[in-house]
Amino acid sequence: MNETMKAFVHTVPGQVGFTEKSVPDNPGTNGAIIKTRTALLCTSDIHAVDRKVEALRNTTLGHEAVGIVHKLGSQVKGLKEGDRVAVSATTPCFRCENCLRGFPSQCQRMLGGVKFGNSKDGVLAEYFHVNDAEANLVPIQATIPDEAAVYATDMMPTGIMGASNAGIPAGGTVAVFAQGPVGLMATAGARLLGAGLVIAVESIPKRKALSKQFGADRVVDFIEVDPVKEILRLTEGKGVDSAIESLGAQNTFEACVKVTRPGGTVSVIGYFTKGEYIGIPRAEWGFGMGEKTIRTGLCPGGKELMRRMLRLLETGRVDPSPLTTHVFEFSELDRAFRMMKTKADDIIKPLIRF
Amino acid sequence: MNETMKAFVHTVPGQVGFTEKSVPDNPGTNGAIIKTRTALLCTSDIHAVDRKVEALRNTTLGHEAVGIVHKLGSQVKGLKEGDRVAVSATTPCFRCENCLRGFPSQCQRMLGGVKFGNSKDGVLAEYFHVNDAEANLVPIQATIPDEAAVYATDMMPTGIMGASNAGIPAGGTVAVFAQGPVGLMATAGARLLGAGLVIAVESIPKRKALSKQFGADRVVDFIEVDPVKEILRLTEGKGVDSAIESLGAQNTFEACVKVTRPGGTVSVIGYFTKGEYIGIPRAEWGFGMGEKTIRTGLCPGGKELMRRMLRLLETGRVDPSPLTTHVFEFSELDRAFRMMKTKADDIIKPLIRF
Amino acid sequence: MNETMKAFVHTVPGQVGFTEKSVPDNPGTNGAIIKTRTALLCTSDIHAVDRKVEALRNTTLGHEAVGIVHKLGSQVKGLKEGDRVAVSATTPCFRCENCLRGFPSQCQRMLGGVKFGNSKDGVLAEYFHVNDAEANLVPIQATIPDEAAVYATDMMPTGIMGASNAGIPAGGTVAVFAQGPVGLMATAGARLLGAGLVIAVESIPKRKALSKQFGADRVVDFIEVDPVKEILRLTEGKGVDSAIESLGAQNTFEACVKVTRPGGTVSVIGYFTKGEYIGIPRAEWGFGMGEKTIRTGLCPGGKELMRRMLRLLETGRVDPSPLTTHVFEFSELDRAFRMMKTKADDIIKPLIRF
Amino acid sequence: MNETMKAFVHTVPGQVGFTEKSVPDNPGTNGAIIKTRTALLCTSDIHAVDRKVEALRNTTLGHEAVGIVHKLGSQVKGLKEGDRVAVSATTPCFRCENCLRGFPSQCQRMLGGVKFGNSKDGVLAEYFHVNDAEANLVPIQATIPDEAAVYATDMMPTGIMGASNAGIPAGGTVAVFAQGPVGLMATAGARLLGAGLVIAVESIPKRKALSKQFGADRVVDFIEVDPVKEILRLTEGKGVDSAIESLGAQNTFEACVKVTRPGGTVSVIGYFTKGEYIGIPRAEWGFGMGEKTIRTGLCPGGKELMRRMLRLLETGRVDPSPLTTHVFEFSELDRAFRMMKTKADDIIKPLIRF
Repeated sequence: MNETMKAFVHTVPGQVGFTEKSVPDNPGTNGAIIKTRTALLCTSDIHAVDRKVEALRNTTLGHEAVGIVHKLGSQVKGLKEGDRVAVSATTPCFRCENCLRGFPSQCQRMLGGVKFGNSKDGVLAEYFHVNDAEANLVPIQATIPDEAAVYATDMMPTGIMGASNAGIPAGGTVAVFAQGPVGLMATAGARLLGAGLVIAVESIPKRKALSKQFGADRVVDFIEVDPVKEILRLTEGKGVDSAIESLGAQNTFEACVKVTRPGGTVSVIGYFTKGEYIGIPRAEWGFGMGEKTIRTGLCPGGKELMRRMLRLLETGRVDPSPLTTHVFEFSELDRAFRMMKTKADDIIKPLIRF
Repeated sequence: MNETMKAFVHTVPGQVGFTEKSVPDNPGTNGAIIKTRTALLCTSDIHAVDRKVEALRNTTLGHEAVGIVHKLGSQVKGLKEGDRVAVSATTPCFRCENCLRGFPSQCQRMLGGVKFGNSKDGVLAEYFHVNDAEANLVPIQATIPDEAAVYATDMMPTGIMGASNAGIPAGGTVAVFAQGPVGLMATAGARLLGAGLVIAVESIPKRKALSKQFGADRVVDFIEVDPVKEILRLTEGKGVDSAIESLGAQNTFEACVKVTRPGGTVSVIGYFTKGEYIGIPRAEWGFGMGEKTIRTGLCPGGKELMRRMLRLLETGRVDPSPLTTHVFEFSELDRAFRMMKTKADDIIKPLIRF
Repeated sequence: MNETMKAFVHTVPGQVGFTEKSVPDNPGTNGAIIKTRTALLCTSDIHAVDRKVEALRNTTLGHEAVGIVHKLGSQVKGLKEGDRVAVSATTPCFRCENCLRGFPSQCQRMLGGVKFGNSKDGVLAEYFHVNDAEANLVPIQATIPDEAAVYATDMMPTGIMGASNAGIPAGGTVAVFAQGPVGLMATAGARLLGAGLVIAVESIPKRKALSKQFGADRVVDFIEVDPVKEILRLTEGKGVDSAIESLGAQNTFEACVKVTRPGGTVSVIGYFTKGEYIGIPRAEWGFGMGEKTIRTGLCPGGKELMRRMLRLLETGRVDPSPLTTHVFEFSELDRAFRMMKTKADDIIKPLIRF
Repeated sequence: MNETMKAFVHTVPGQVGFTEKSVPDNPGTNGAIIKTRTALLCTSDIHAVDRKVEALRNTTLGHEAVGIVHKLGSQVKGLKEGDRVAVSATTPCFRCENCLRGFPSQCQRMLGGVKFGNSKDGVLAEYFHVNDAEANLVPIQATIPDEAAVYATDMMPTGIMGASNAGIPAGGTVAVFAQGPVGLMATAGARLLGAGLVIAVESIPKRKALSKQFGADRVVDFIEVDPVKEILRLTEGKGVDSAIESLGAQNTFEACVKVTRPGGTVSVIGYFTKGEYIGIPRAEWGFGMGEKTIRTGLCPGGKELMRRMLRLLETGRVDPSPLTTHVFEFSELDRAFRMMKTKADDIIKPLIRF
């Protein structure tokens, strides 16, 4: 109880830094305390800080982690203290109305599945608490290192959900706009789920190269060519069966609608940070009758999904390790955060060691 | 060949009137010539004229009709001359790539299933030609009068498609924005497909009354109250499972997104006539992560669908006849068209007798 | 703790009767103790007894109940002591792998969602315990009497699930084999979900009459005619889009496959009590290529589903009250059980008052 | 018209051989005459002969072919004489009720999409006729040789349909029973569509080896071990998410039900040749409540599907060429047929050159 630990928090609105906190010692009947081993920093941590929310003052950041079960609630089955576990980035309660409707990411309220770093302390501390541990933790096979397993908590399920929501027909065509970490995982997801042609849109050389590595057949550089025209050209004027928006911006969203065939799907996995409205281009949307479906998603979470992600790692279907461009000690988080904010040194994902 | 008939056409761009045309006499191997008996005028006929398209000069208007098979192509099976048939409003070819993908309304190109009054003469003439007759005509049971059957060609399938696309859970909540003809059919469709609470949004007294008749549990008058607030109030702040947009306007579309629960669906059946963009309200859309799906549709067409619509008429599940507020002779089409344009005398659907 | 109550239990394998038990007084952190008000007896209670399972000795029977929250676990949100609630017949944990996969009825293991009267005491006692109360209890609107609400716990969700699993197209054709309680609810469900023609198969006069009341367009008496031939005749030789098996017997299952069109669905809600195998008729199944899907289901449970069922009661979409053919006091359960076993006096559902 | 050609036909019921036929010279308005270049022999040709159907006397066998458009019907768009095309193995009309319902393989009647070698002459002749050519032919990219493209007509779409019908969750587990040509393509399909673990069941050494080549992670030899026990062991006792039956036999079908998890899917692509009934094992099916869905399918056909298959060949996602274990000249078909019947020399698919 008197023990303290370091945590990486919103210090004042809009700023981050280390602070001392008590080590959490009460898991609660359904929760767990995790000793952190490995984590990832996420662009959404940057977004969270940029919103400058007063209420988040002193809240620990971070939501992608692997750790050791330190203390376990009395009602939690299927786990034991000492287990090495992947922790779901969204931690739904799985008993509220939205969870029971099949939308755990919208636990209790819109986007309510995102609890870490938001309605409770996140994972960027030496220890952290997980609610509803039975559903939100999964033991990791001995053969899978932390450095891979940590991608099963958010990046892989988000990218693959993006591809899954896109409704790609077997052998169909897909365009993935923006090749940041989730965009790259969506590219990998499109390949995983049977796309016949994957077109990635990106201009940063390192990301273009990674895009090919993760399975893009073609990379369209939007600085060199108009991506809408180029994608139409690559598909004989038909457009793609599915487009995935992984940036969260008007121009990429709009381009997605424009390059999608009538009857196709636009799958959104980007977080939109600006503007009162996101505009659907009326004519290319078929004036509301072109049967272009627009779906969105937020990492669904839960152990069952993570178990499938770990299986993909185990059988070698997806190898997310090239996403880790930089490795930091926990004490270096300040620097990692600044680099992530400016995307310095072509950083994709910084991995944090505890 | 020398025989002539009256047809109601785009005379010059933006204007309508009667003209003389040759009676079509060549059905082609896969088509048919229909002698018109009963038709309906549609708001989309008004939209078509308002677009003032030079290429439509002299093209016959109309796409909702019941008639008699006058001549039949040699390859058409399952029909014979003299059959009384319902004619699909959209007449897809059912062999192009988009049709085979499962999107016959997007036949050959976006919205390409709409051939009548667009890429070929419509049904508001004494005789008209139907392409791909085997798939686009269905014989009408003797027990169903023209006046009911004609609703199986467009109004019923469009409204019910709107409800079906809305993914209403059994006993779920639905809001239907605008109670014009397709909105009313969407209200009927939501009831038909198991909604537990149907909230219609409308302000015209006659339409409000019809809305109740077609199955709305509550009617929200948007002049009296803010419909978004009222719908949230009626659903204990949760919002509806599904919202149906049947007007084609920014404010109703936007309201649909706002009243839909996370994980719910907005189903669009309105035709959007204005603006370069249709705006999705960013915050209520969950910043691209609220899992509110936006679907659109266009009357899918074909005999199989019409057969199911006729069955609903036969077993009394849906009775569209209250939609017919006015009846005209073919020769009075000018007046009917003007009334439809101004919605004079609270007109909903004018039925045309030949 | 010393307080005792009456409970209706498996006495010895294959027999039932009253016994004295301690009133349960520890809800556990996630559970609740319910004071029973109204219950229903179910054919599956009869099946359970007929299996003569030694391990069920002294286990309380019953799983359909409405009651008052007597004691509440400390972690249960959204409820308070004194609330009148409907209790889900299946009470999944909603955190195990099968629950997270979307199959709460298969909680932890096949059919594992059925806990009442099976892995724990059922509801036919003055008080009973409910696991995972937050997810498995729902408050009942004041306007809905116990006598209706108790149908929202099992009969309505099971019947409507049967219709939903059947994939009925709007205006499609459905055959429902056997019109016992769940069969009748499947008939109501088929109507609720948009069937254009509902054909019920039954021979008991009272059930035939109820079948019409719940929405069947046609009732086929299998003693008078061969139901397969008759259903084919009623559908012009095509067969139905969907068939619902609600008896659990080889001959009705087989008939379902035979009357279903290629591409149609057989939805099973009956419990099969006999035989090592259930036979699919090879030829009518298209030799494994006729695209006739066979689905099964078990009441999915949970408060969200019950809330939708209660809404259907509230807005009058479904009125299950004609199912209650007999009413008993709790003390008369012995007699009710015997009547249910022999279906004496054309009993459908006996309602039990506490 | 007087020109003759060689065709490989059912001579008398149960026997095959060459015969002379007139070269078909009338494509009909919607059809085409194809000059055969490359074909495959299929186990279903063997089944067809074994049924000894009198009506098939003198009907040409075969349904997997690539050829040149020799003559084209006047109404066929999108093709021209001289085009090298893949010919759909099933050739639905795409305008009948079953086709419009979304089940083209069941064109007009159950299994009615299979026209070649059944209701019309098949492809194992120097020339053959194709009905509804616009929908059932697709031009082949110059970069794809006949030897690969011919697999896009039946083997690939059937195997991939089997995997698609199996509803494999991303990273899920799949068992594929029997590794004949369609079983191997189902194995490839399961990999293509995102399975995390593919377990193939087979005992013939060559097929076991090919199975690994096409993507199986594990191969279970049913002679060495009980495949049900072994698959349960490999999945920690849970069973697989999806099982694919590609033999058409009671024991493999039954094993599929047994190894599938509650809530999982059994996807059948085998043709069942024997028995009045196919038995579902009652207990492992959850007594009709285990939510194990049983789906079947028959190669859906059409140019749009073949186009996606050709894309998979073009981008190298699937390479079916190892299936071709033997190559024959057209004149050697007698020998090829005998080998296919006895599976001599471990034959998988014999490719026929014209």
